[in-house]
Amino acid sequence: SLPSWNEGPAKMAIKEFVNATTTSGSQEYIHLEDRIAVFDQDGTLWVEQPIYTQFFFAIDTVKSLAANNPEWKNKEPYKTIIEGDLEKIRNFTVQEIEQVIAVSHANVTVEEFKDRVHSWLNKAIHPRFKKKYTELIYQPMLEVIRLLKNHGYKIYIVSGGGQEFIRAYSEKTYGIPSEQVIGSTGKVKYDYQDGKPELFKLPEVLFIDDKAGKPEAINLFIGKRPVAAFGNSDGDQQMLEWSQSYKGKNLQLLVHHDDPIREYQYDTESKVGTFSDSLMKEAQKNNWIIVSMKDDWKIIFSD
Amino acid sequence: SLPSWNEGPAKMAIKEFVNATTTSGSQEYIHLEDRIAVFDQDGTLWVEQPIYTQFFFAIDTVKSLAANNPEWKNKEPYKTIIEGDLEKIRNFTVQEIEQVIAVSHANVTVEEFKDRVHSWLNKAIHPRFKKKYTELIYQPMLEVIRLLKNHGYKIYIVSGGGQEFIRAYSEKTYGIPSEQVIGSTGKVKYDYQDGKPELFKLPEVLFIDDKAGKPEAINLFIGKRPVAAFGNSDGDQQMLEWSQSYKGKNLQLLVHHDDPIREYQYDTESKVGTFSDSLMKEAQKNNWIIVSMKDDWKIIFSD
Repeated sequence: SLPSWNEGPAKMAIKEFVNATTTSGSQEYIHLEDRIAVFDQDGTLWVEQPIYTQFFFAIDTVKSLAANNPEWKNKEPYKTIIEGDLEKIRNFTVQEIEQVIAVSHANVTVEEFKDRVHSWLNKAIHPRFKKKYTELIYQPMLEVIRLLKNHGYKIYIVSGGGQEFIRAYSEKTYGIPSEQVIGSTGKVKYDYQDGKPELFKLPEVLFIDDKAGKPEAINLFIGKRPVAAFGNSDGDQQMLEWSQSYKGKNLQLLVHHDDPIREYQYDTESKVGTFSDSLMKEAQKNNWIIVSMKDDWKIIFSD
Repeated sequence: SLPSWNEGPAKMAIKEFVNATTTSGSQEYIHLEDRIAVFDQDGTLWVEQPIYTQFFFAIDTVKSLAANNPEWKNKEPYKTIIEGDLEKIRNFTVQEIEQVIAVSHANVTVEEFKDRVHSWLNKAIHPRFKKKYTELIYQPMLEVIRLLKNHGYKIYIVSGGGQEFIRAYSEKTYGIPSEQVIGSTGKVKYDYQDGKPELFKLPEVLFIDDKAGKPEAINLFIGKRPVAAFGNSDGDQQMLEWSQSYKGKNLQLLVHHDDPIREYQYDTESKVGTFSDSLMKEAQKNNWIIVSMKDDWKIIFSD
C-alpha cells in the first residue's frame, strides 16, 4: 500500500494510523460509524496553480457567454477576462471574483451546470502541464483515499471551492459520490420549467466552506468530528483542529508544495493556497504531519 | 418482508418497486449509487400529534430554563409555557414558535445540545400514549426502511424539524446515521472554549427544510434526485414531485392519518401535519400511493 510514497515519517504515520484504528482488538480501534476522513481539494488532491481550476472554468465560461453580452467588452471585470490578461486576473479583488463566479455559476439549472462543467473538463488544458485538469490529481493522495476507504473509512471532500463544481467529476475522478462532497455553495430555487420541476442556481451565496466555515460545514453535513483531516493551506487549519479534538486516535496532515521541478513551490507569499508561517507554527505545536512533495512523493501524477 | 402491512395495493407497490429496481437483469434496475430514498419524519415515521415532539422538547426546555430567567413569568410567550396552557401553546404565532425554538436550541455547543435532547427523551412521556416518544415510531415504516436498506438503498430523513434534534436519536431509533439526516438548521459558530474548539449553536436560521426547501436541501446534501420519497403532509409535496422527476422507475407514498382509535385522524383541518385537498388532488393525478393507517397497517407501534 502507498506505493507512490517514499519510506519516511509521513508514510509510516499514515500506515500506523490505519492499522491502529481498524485492527480489531487494537486499543485505538475506531468503530465503523466514526471512521470519517476529510480532504481539502485544491492543492491537497489536485493542482491549484497558477490559479484555482474552478476559476479557469469561470473565465472560460465568461468568455463563451460574452458573445451574448456584447456590452462586456467595455465593462470590468469582463473586459480583462475577454482580453485574457492572466496577470491582471490573478489580482482581481474579492468582489470581482465573486462577480465572475456569480455570472458563470448561476441562472442555469443544477443539471445544466453539471453539463457545462463536464464539457469544459473534456476540453480544457492546464497551461503548464498540457493535460486535462482531472489528470492533475496527486497519485499519492489517491492512494491514501483508497487505503482509508478499503479500511472502512467514509471519505469526504471539504473544499473552499464550489460544491456543485466538484460534484460534477468527484465520482469519476476520486471515487467519491456527490453526497460526500462538501464545498462552498450558492442558493438554489425550486421551480417549474415546462411543467417539470427543476432547481435553478441563484447568484447568492449560502455559505463559504473555508477556515472556520469548514468545521461548521462538517457539522452541518456529517454531524461528527472527523478522525482524519488532510489539507495544505491556511484555509484548512480549523478543519485540522476540529479533527484533532476527536476523543480517540486521530491524524492531521498538510501537503507542503516544495517541488518547483515536478509541480510548484509556494507557501507564505502565495495568494493561492497560502501556507503561512503561523500555520507552520500551529502544525509543529500540534504534531501535524508535514508532507514534502519533493521528498515524500515518488511521483506526483499517475500516468 | 413487511409483516406489519396488510395485503393490498400499498404493500404490493412497495414490494414490486424494490424487486424491479434491485433485481439484476430487471429492465428497471437502478445502480447502487442512485438508490436514494427520502423519508419525512413527523407524521411519517413517528407521531406528530397533538403537537410536534420537538415542540414538546422546546416547551420543557423553556420550563427548565425559567428558573434562571425569573422575568419570563410575566413575559410572553414564556408565561403561557410556564403556566402550561397547551391550547394557547397550540395557537402560538410563527414568531412565538421561532422565539421558543431559538431560546431552547441555541447558546449551547452542538454536543451540549445533543446531551440535552438525550436526557429529555429519556424521561419525557407522550400525554396520550404514556410512552417515550422514541417508542412511538410506526413499525410498518421501520419495515419499509429495513427492506430498502437491505436492498442497497441509502436512507435519508428529510424533515422540516430540526436537524440536530433528530440526529440525537436517529442512529439508535431508525438505524440512520447523522450524515443521513437532513432537517431545518440553525447557524453554528466555530470558536474556542478553554482553548478547545467547539461549535456553538446560534439563534439564527440557516435554512428551513420544508416544502420547496426539501428538494433544495436534498440537492445540497445529496446532489441526486431521490428514487423513492415518503411523506404525509403538504410540506412533502415538492419532495415527492422531485423524486417523481427521476429518470428511471420511482416511488412516492403518503401516509394518511385516518385511524382515530389506534392513532389520530386528521388531514385538511389540522394545523399540524396538514394533508390538504390540494395535496390529495396532486397525489391522485400523479399516482402517488396513499396509505390508510387504518386499513393498510396491522399494527401502528412495535412493542
